[in-house]
Amino acid sequence: MLLVLDGLGGLPHQSHGLTELEAARTPNLDQLAREGQTGLSQAVGLGVTPGSGPGHLALFGYDPIGNNIGRGALSALGLGLDLNDGDLAVRLNFCTLGADGTVLDRRAGRIETEVNHVLVQKLNEIDIPDVDLRFVTESQHRAVLVLRGPNLDRRVVETDPQAVGVPPKHPDALDPKATHTSALLAQILVEVRSVIGAETPANFVLMRGYAGTPKLPTLGNLYGLNPVCVATYPMYKGLARTVGMEVIDSLHTLSDQVATLDNAWDAYDYFFLHVKAPDARGEDGDFDGKVAAIEDVDERLIEIVEHAPDVLVVTGDHSTPSRLGQHSWHPSPCVFWGDTVRADETSSFGERSCGGGSLGVFPAQAIMALMLAHSGRLAKFGA
Amino acid sequence: MLLVLDGLGGLPHQSHGLTELEAARTPNLDQLAREGQTGLSQAVGLGVTPGSGPGHLALFGYDPIGNNIGRGALSALGLGLDLNDGDLAVRLNFCTLGADGTVLDRRAGRIETEVNHVLVQKLNEIDIPDVDLRFVTESQHRAVLVLRGPNLDRRVVETDPQAVGVPPKHPDALDPKATHTSALLAQILVEVRSVIGAETPANFVLMRGYAGTPKLPTLGNLYGLNPVCVATYPMYKGLARTVGMEVIDSLHTLSDQVATLDNAWDAYDYFFLHVKAPDARGEDGDFDGKVAAIEDVDERLIEIVEHAPDVLVVTGDHSTPSRLGQHSWHPSPCVFWGDTVRADETSSFGERSCGGGSLGVFPAQAIMALMLAHSGRLAKFGA
Repeated sequence: MLLVLDGLGGLPHQSHGLTELEAARTPNLDQLAREGQTGLSQAVGLGVTPGSGPGHLALFGYDPIGNNIGRGALSALGLGLDLNDGDLAVRLNFCTLGADGTVLDRRAGRIETEVNHVLVQKLNEIDIPDVDLRFVTESQHRAVLVLRGPNLDRRVVETDPQAVGVPPKHPDALDPKATHTSALLAQILVEVRSVIGAETPANFVLMRGYAGTPKLPTLGNLYGLNPVCVATYPMYKGLARTVGMEVIDSLHTLSDQVATLDNAWDAYDYFFLHVKAPDARGEDGDFDGKVAAIEDVDERLIEIVEHAPDVLVVTGDHSTPSRLGQHSWHPSPCVFWGDTVRADETSSFGERSCGGGSLGVFPAQAIMALMLAHSGRLAKFGA
Repeated sequence: MLLVLDGLGGLPHQSHGLTELEAARTPNLDQLAREGQTGLSQAVGLGVTPGSGPGHLALFGYDPIGNNIGRGALSALGLGLDLNDGDLAVRLNFCTLGADGTVLDRRAGRIETEVNHVLVQKLNEIDIPDVDLRFVTESQHRAVLVLRGPNLDRRVVETDPQAVGVPPKHPDALDPKATHTSALLAQILVEVRSVIGAETPANFVLMRGYAGTPKLPTLGNLYGLNPVCVATYPMYKGLARTVGMEVIDSLHTLSDQVATLDNAWDAYDYFFLHVKAPDARGEDGDFDGKVAAIEDVDERLIEIVEHAPDVLVVTGDHSTPSRLGQHSWHPSPCVFWGDTVRADETSSFGERSCGGGSLGVFPAQAIMALMLAHSGRLAKFGA
């Protein structure tokens, strides 16, 4: 079982000097650390801040650099949309444009998801010859557009300027083969303007994360695993589907997630349990909220451990220090716990304590090999 | 000097919580750890269980993945057989076939080596045109067949089914160029059946580990070393010969091995001293036996250190926890001791203590470079 506390790692609080994880009361995680082996896992490399895609691909054992999946495809997969070969998925933000054509708010005041639904319904009336367009609500200001048609190419400039006070960029082709797609996206943006240009506050969209259908070998093919994803957020379900996991749907709370293990335990042999809250509170800059989110997981840990996995790994996909309010490059505390895990001298679960663990700072991509080894699933190499 | 305690690393005992090495009384190894630098060496990679071949190649500084030597060649070299270019070496197990042609015992009840000698003598009467066959006893049920003739190719299916209750596999060609070898091995197996088919319990052989003559640059060529192997077991002598070491023969005990250093010390500049017992007792599942084997080495350590090597490294090629009774993927405790070694804060030689050492978890392949550096044999890189 891989238990991911999204954005787990943090930085010391500027008054009391403890990180969120160090400040949290985590008797159960501390016991894992005492009985298990610890270290700091690093998804991409020293100094590199991982997005959710590379962060999780590494945890699943994939090269996170060679397998960079576009955000559009992740979002589409997370929403359960079918992507065919040749489709192009685009991540959209509803935004607010000023009268001068510059971006006033890249997220249109984080509109309610209900408003998003109404806008998406209008956008789905856009009709352009030779291409099927499907706009789909993700949440709040976030949506996805899937294009299906001939000759689509993702090598186009993202229109999101990543700043306010400037106009959106034009979707210029970055490669001669993307000229058709560039023209198509420009035409779509004209239509979008005509359909929702009079709305408030969301009167336009910004495009980014162009992506074709990701093609990865599955965990079943690679390792003979029958894996399952126990997550609440679309993005992580999408990542899990991309690597061939089955996804248990209709989970909304940590309580749902833990409860579903009872039924699922005998049906699968690899569990990816994803907890979003530590990252969300970290991005909010909410130190105490992140502490509470970590403590919530600690309280449910006994119910998870009760299932007696061959090996349990608890770590993050990246750090999200509430002090920074965003993903960071700091490696993630990590603990391995199980019958064949060789304990080290770490006695609590935290950034500093795991920093002295016998795994050292190690690539998150190695977690899968270690999990397979600790489950007795790898043969000896060489005579 | 590289002192390899084969299978050194272990796992905590389920009652008292100490590993074999931690439980052993090792005042001399502890002193090395106190005065030296420690870490955990890893032959192949995180989660990978090394066989003896890759485990030792890494310790000698070779890439253990790019230089995977077949078991047949290792066994042949270990027996002191000459292998020429183009020869094919095959590892044989004498086995017991049932009347229905399925394998009843893959090791023929581990027959006495004397019985093996008699069987091998009979098999050496097999005569096939255009190829020289040489069957050689290894020990118990283990033997080697060396084929010498034109057009031999190792890309053939191993006939050992690695299971009982099923027939041996047919030596099918895995590549069109191996068709001749496939037919030849099939013919040999027919002859083997006719020569020993009526014996009990060893009435057939299983073939695996097909290997051509390994071609590795020697330690002499690579590093200007004049290296020597001080080992008792054929396999490790074979590995040492493969990398160009001289091998001191007729050593049977640890006492022999330590005593021979007196004469050899001035004749060589790199010593590979291999102690098999910790691995053998670990494979037997004999915790106390492995403890005793480690203590035996500790007692002789003073006589080794007396020779004042520039640098002494003590480690394992892989772990063999007696709890598992087989090689494992856990990295090996490692200590560097010598005049230019920078000591760390480790104060005893064990899995947990070395896990906090300043070498961290590091690739065993780097040990050679560090030994050369600590012996003053490497020039500055760059101006």
